[in-house]
Amino acid sequence: MQLRIPPGDNRPRAICNACGAIHYHNPRIVVGCIPERQGRILLCQRGIDPRRGYWTFPAGFYEIGETLAQAAARESLEEALARVQVGSLLAITHLLHAAQVHMTFRATLLDDNFGVGAESLQAGLCGEGEIPWDHLAFPSIDFALRCYFADRSAGREQLHFSTAERALGGGAAAGSPRAL
Amino acid sequence: MQLRIPPGDNRPRAICNACGAIHYHNPRIVVGCIPERQGRILLCQRGIDPRRGYWTFPAGFYEIGETLAQAAARESLEEALARVQVGSLLAITHLLHAAQVHMTFRATLLDDNFGVGAESLQAGLCGEGEIPWDHLAFPSIDFALRCYFADRSAGREQLHFSTAERALGGGAAAGSPRAL
Repeated sequence: MQLRIPPGDNRPRAICNACGAIHYHNPRIVVGCIPERQGRILLCQRGIDPRRGYWTFPAGFYEIGETLAQAAARESLEEALARVQVGSLLAITHLLHAAQVHMTFRATLLDDNFGVGAESLQAGLCGEGEIPWDHLAFPSIDFALRCYFADRSAGREQLHFSTAERALGGGAAAGSPRAL
Repeated sequence: MQLRIPPGDNRPRAICNACGAIHYHNPRIVVGCIPERQGRILLCQRGIDPRRGYWTFPAGFYEIGETLAQAAARESLEEALARVQVGSLLAITHLLHAAQVHMTFRATLLDDNFGVGAESLQAGLCGEGEIPWDHLAFPSIDFALRCYFADRSAGREQLHFSTAERALGGGAAAGSPRAL
């Protein structure tokens, strides 16, 4: 493999010296949702790196063959054994250095029978005054939650954009993640 | 390379038999915009496959290191030498079999000095009654344009979702693409 600019292109790409195949690398989508039930929202404590021990709503890499809403529902099921109905798109955060776009939807948690998924340490419902702001996993989680509560207070549903220049998390474990 | 399900995962991934590296494949984002000036919108006739000869607004693969709006502006410059101001998000189309998500923004064309980019055959401004509906390049282009004009008529700016099950285009050249 060698980094070269293919003919007609304007960016270096990974090109196989043997067969000439061009391997494009493009940003990946991380999709999630904020499931609400009776005014409280569902958060999970991450059980895997990066940012093990920190808190997030259900979110993960968007996979081939599903819609964004289906992906958000799948992540809720995987991370918190939660059944959700996905609503409107709330926030898009560009993580430039991580080559990721985080897309977060509003959602409704359909019943109280959630649990702790294989990649989580805990899961629980959390009122607006109980959000562990200092122990959120990623800047995009913080941004989406702030937009969520601001819109909810104002009785509106808007789409919000943000950009984070630095890479996500550090892979370090949480110092003292606050329990829900 | 071998397709296997890694430990803790639930999908087959391409895994290198020599070093164990997992090569994830995720959907790619195609980002574009509909630049409007004095009531007309900017369309380009594609000069490359797939769908050479068919019409589209400026759009292309989202690259690392840019925001979605910056990508939409870059594509306008590359495909139609056009300077645009990107506005609100108009449409998201899931292309399930192509493993793509097409995201289209509203935009304003800032001046009349556009032209024909290296990957285009023609570019031109087009009123709502002049859209070459039968010669659009992709279902996502058709969907976004219909949403655009419906919202414009209604004086609103909403975000619209659609899903296309079949793969994009066929790579075949256009039979008789209509000139603008």
